[in-house]
Amino acid sequence: MERLQNSAEAQQYTLYADNSCPNKQESTGGFVLVHAGAGYHSESKAKEYKLACKRACQQAVDQLKAGGLAVEAVAAALVELEDSPFTNAGMGSNLNLSGEIECDASIMDGKSLHYGAVGAISGIKNPVLVANRLLSEAQKGKLSAGRIPPCFLVGRGARDWAISHGVPPCPSEKMATKFSLSAYKRNKRKMEVAEKIDTGLHRTKKSRQSSGNKNGLECLDTVGAVVVDLQGNVAAAVSSGGLAMKHPGRVGQAAHYGCGCWAENACNMNTYSTAVSTSGCGEHLIRTMLARECSATMQSEDAHQALLEAMQNKFISSPFLANEDRVLGGVIVLRCCRFPEPQLSPNDRGPLVEFLWSHTTESMCVGYMSVQDSKAKTHISRLPPGTVPGRSLAIEGGVCRLKSMVD
Amino acid sequence: MERLQNSAEAQQYTLYADNSCPNKQESTGGFVLVHAGAGYHSESKAKEYKLACKRACQQAVDQLKAGGLAVEAVAAALVELEDSPFTNAGMGSNLNLSGEIECDASIMDGKSLHYGAVGAISGIKNPVLVANRLLSEAQKGKLSAGRIPPCFLVGRGARDWAISHGVPPCPSEKMATKFSLSAYKRNKRKMEVAEKIDTGLHRTKKSRQSSGNKNGLECLDTVGAVVVDLQGNVAAAVSSGGLAMKHPGRVGQAAHYGCGCWAENACNMNTYSTAVSTSGCGEHLIRTMLARECSATMQSEDAHQALLEAMQNKFISSPFLANEDRVLGGVIVLRCCRFPEPQLSPNDRGPLVEFLWSHTTESMCVGYMSVQDSKAKTHISRLPPGTVPGRSLAIEGGVCRLKSMVD
Repeated sequence: MERLQNSAEAQQYTLYADNSCPNKQESTGGFVLVHAGAGYHSESKAKEYKLACKRACQQAVDQLKAGGLAVEAVAAALVELEDSPFTNAGMGSNLNLSGEIECDASIMDGKSLHYGAVGAISGIKNPVLVANRLLSEAQKGKLSAGRIPPCFLVGRGARDWAISHGVPPCPSEKMATKFSLSAYKRNKRKMEVAEKIDTGLHRTKKSRQSSGNKNGLECLDTVGAVVVDLQGNVAAAVSSGGLAMKHPGRVGQAAHYGCGCWAENACNMNTYSTAVSTSGCGEHLIRTMLARECSATMQSEDAHQALLEAMQNKFISSPFLANEDRVLGGVIVLRCCRFPEPQLSPNDRGPLVEFLWSHTTESMCVGYMSVQDSKAKTHISRLPPGTVPGRSLAIEGGVCRLKSMVD
Repeated sequence: MERLQNSAEAQQYTLYADNSCPNKQESTGGFVLVHAGAGYHSESKAKEYKLACKRACQQAVDQLKAGGLAVEAVAAALVELEDSPFTNAGMGSNLNLSGEIECDASIMDGKSLHYGAVGAISGIKNPVLVANRLLSEAQKGKLSAGRIPPCFLVGRGARDWAISHGVPPCPSEKMATKFSLSAYKRNKRKMEVAEKIDTGLHRTKKSRQSSGNKNGLECLDTVGAVVVDLQGNVAAAVSSGGLAMKHPGRVGQAAHYGCGCWAENACNMNTYSTAVSTSGCGEHLIRTMLARECSATMQSEDAHQALLEAMQNKFISSPFLANEDRVLGGVIVLRCCRFPEPQLSPNDRGPLVEFLWSHTTESMCVGYMSVQDSKAKTHISRLPPGTVPGRSLAIEGGVCRLKSMVD
């Protein structure tokens, strides 16, 4: 994988089997890549973000080691990321205009191509578990009287469905943290100041737009993960508390099909299994359908070049965002294929995984780990100094060959 | 446009200007195609469905005659369709499991590529007006403190936002009709019977699937419209009360970006302006992203063949619906282009519109009208006798050349 011009820190990352679990009976293996948001990650909290990513990778790997499929592993990673009070998902999510927490989450299984999502759900600690349950219920087929099971539930109805399907409720006040409450108060003050400047009732288009470059409420730390298991099954998930001070009922990309996450196994038409999870400004990611666009692009030969072009042409320069002054988002991507490589010994013929991340935001926190690794690697990717967030991008990644734990 | 093999009734439809408004100062013109759902339309209610379509076309044409853009005309058509007590949108919508009405709607403007949507909204007579207001608010740029305006709101938050933006509330009990209430009671009884058969608490995959072919609750009469104005601007909209007996909070394709409607003006990359609105089983239309897929396909040369292939390959035979026994849906599509045709007199050089509808459901009710027409044409398209709903399709359409009202 070649180094990109404007990449802050490109990485060549190759994993080798350490065969550390010789007693394992199942042929397990796999790889996980997670993110704790594309946005702004202060150095002071870098340790916490990295720790959340590390734990999430470990959870996914534990699932894979136990013989779990990609979709199970990706859900496990998400639960860990949601549980961190430092991420904007589940516990510690951004508060909305009314001071409430409403979360979005979705999950997609590249094997069955099933999908589950919840939007603006309150009082559930792990929204991804509801999305995952919707996915698995949909796989069971029709409900009584031929009714088709839902793939997307929102609001109170989503919460009631979750509880009736065994997902435990959580009092909303327990999901707010000191940090999210103080951010809410700060943001409210910023809004009051900004609205005074914007001349109160008579906001013009000019004044609305002018406020975009100052006093911004930038908490874009949506979380997500992509996983591939040894069979080449992929899965992707994403979870978000949404934009700070959003209107109640606002649903962002994390619950939007094709926008928050995408996973598609290799098939007759596609050489590669691909999985994508996005983060950033929900409306930008929705209108460009970034997860699905990136996934489709990743079928071309050079993964690095493909993602670079997707981020440039389908996101930063997208005609759908022509009037936006800054286009804010990030993606994590993996693709996997099993080439017939006769020159390699059977031991070295596991699926080849390429994994990448790219963002137009100031920073993006990622972690990655294979089943053979003893611990995850984490990294806060930053835009190169002097470049403009929302108009420039960073792109990095690596490669890894999957191996069975029972070679 | 060639006649298709399995088309029940193909139509060649060419409009000519009648220049009936010589005093009109603005250069107006345009064309509208509406649908009152892909599903099952009984002969006994055919008159009512057709009347709703006729009135909707007239509303859109009135807007176009008054110099309105495509997006304004499409919203006007939808309001009329929502107001009909016979359609499953707005007034008279299907009731959910709890006996409540929750509506989905969305609208897309092919000129700005902006989009607005509401999901699971209650107590608003015309959900499309909320979607349209979200679209127009988003076009004004950022809110105070740099906040990005929402494009998708759900549930209570959507209702509150609508009311605060001047959309009048409507008591939910006024939106239920005699027909929707009696259908709810019938459906509830069907469910009770089916659940007894399905052995109550211990439903197996087999029993869940087996119930799919009998006692179905088929009310799929989502409504929608596509419009092109004389400048070649397109717009699309869709509105739905959702599947009968859906779980509260369930959001269908009508609120899903890329699934319920799509509109994209011609640009450097696209020869044609295209607009699509879908109807049918929401989950099928979501997972295949049918509106956007059809729109993308319509850039190829032969519109009829393109739509046929899209419906066959991207819907009926989609890998995303591989396990579904029946794939239920329908689309209305228009595309428009302004070719340089030197052989034609300037009077004949208006944009050429091709319009089509296709469905895998038993029937689909459509109406269409150009600004030059004195009244709309309506039609209930049915699958050819002996074909299987969900596995066969009908496809029909016509062409029309737009002309200015002030030639």
